[in-house]
Amino acid sequence: MGRIEDRLRELGLVLPAPKAPVANYLGTKRSGDLLFVSGRVSALKGEVGGDVSPAEARDAARDTMLDLLAIVLRDIGDLDHVVSIEQVRGFVRSAPAFAAQPAVIDGASDLLVALWGDAGRHARTATGAAQLPFGACVQLEMVVRIGKTSDLVG
Amino acid sequence: MGRIEDRLRELGLVLPAPKAPVANYLGTKRSGDLLFVSGRVSALKGEVGGDVSPAEARDAARDTMLDLLAIVLRDIGDLDHVVSIEQVRGFVRSAPAFAAQPAVIDGASDLLVALWGDAGRHARTATGAAQLPFGACVQLEMVVRIGKTSDLVG
Amino acid sequence: MGRIEDRLRELGLVLPAPKAPVANYLGTKRSGDLLFVSGRVSALKGEVGGDVSPAEARDAARDTMLDLLAIVLRDIGDLDHVVSIEQVRGFVRSAPAFAAQPAVIDGASDLLVALWGDAGRHARTATGAAQLPFGACVQLEMVVRIGKTSDLVG
Repeated sequence: MGRIEDRLRELGLVLPAPKAPVANYLGTKRSGDLLFVSGRVSALKGEVGGDVSPAEARDAARDTMLDLLAIVLRDIGDLDHVVSIEQVRGFVRSAPAFAAQPAVIDGASDLLVALWGDAGRHARTATGAAQLPFGACVQLEMVVRIGKTSDLVG
Repeated sequence: MGRIEDRLRELGLVLPAPKAPVANYLGTKRSGDLLFVSGRVSALKGEVGGDVSPAEARDAARDTMLDLLAIVLRDIGDLDHVVSIEQVRGFVRSAPAFAAQPAVIDGASDLLVALWGDAGRHARTATGAAQLPFGACVQLEMVVRIGKTSDLVG
Repeated sequence: MGRIEDRLRELGLVLPAPKAPVANYLGTKRSGDLLFVSGRVSALKGEVGGDVSPAEARDAARDTMLDLLAIVLRDIGDLDHVVSIEQVRGFVRSAPAFAAQPAVIDGASDLLVALWGDAGRHARTATGAAQLPFGACVQLEMVVRIGKTSDLVG
């Protein structure tokens, strides 16, 4: 078990089983030192600011990031190979008057910083969406930098 | 004619004439080994799940990917220079209750895998949008990896 | 003062004070030769095609790009270190019938080309959004290429 997985345990968090893509794409694609991580939606459905509260959506963003990390772990074998989080993009399914998307996506960003420290700090865009796949309330994708590439499984 | 163009013909597909950007941007921008391909919208207009059926939208996604490939061909001279498809992002203009965006974008992803095989498999995000340029039902952008750079035209 | 800042002055434009991120993320993240610039929203609020006119939104897109450039300047010390603009993504908060997002985002693209010439020409996607953070009418993010990395501050 590596350092990042130790840190997850210290935080009382458990990675879920890595989910398979819902259609014809990869969970991650390696591109040189970068790993493009495909978008995934939250299990929680609904409109934030409507039937989903901002606090629930923030938790859903954290849980969706755990889903992304489980997929990254499966694909590269060890989360310690992730040396930096480069960019995160989050879509928040928003009721018409809801405009606090950044606070929702902080659920994901806070987790990355808790796990990787300064290297987990990233560029980010949080955007509203009227509809997301399966009616989910949050969708996240990211780009990470990987090292020790000679050791990589994927 | 290269291998990818041969494969297109075997599939009974024809690349359209490459369209010019509709505003002040490039069809593609090369960045080291990566090529950023600008977003393009489908010729088919309407809301998926409303006046456009999911099957029609899926075909529109495939046709829009043909538009992207025509632009890539114009800009780098030979589709065989594309060694890998890294990331695809698709926006689907969605009626309020429509939540099957991934199946729509498969129209594009399936084509890439049919043309490039495993190298055509990519990271992807499929998102809903309430509105797209010109009222189109689908918008696609992508990042591809190019090789044989000493031979490149663009 | 560098060449790009000179050019800004010649255009009669002034960079604003660089704004801090509104949540737990960085204004920019360096990734090798690339700099991922986080999304920022316009100060101008409203729906384009509704309470905001397309011309006002285009000006807001230019002003938002000035905000991005101010952040880039703070983070890398000199805009002349930016050797190329690779990709710009713009979200336009759109009234239901508004479909001219590309013309809005030209407010940002035109500025980049005015400042960097051909190197400022970029891949781009302009998309509609039903809602954006703080009710803004425009949101922009970009990826730029930086050079002279041995001199960089950030």
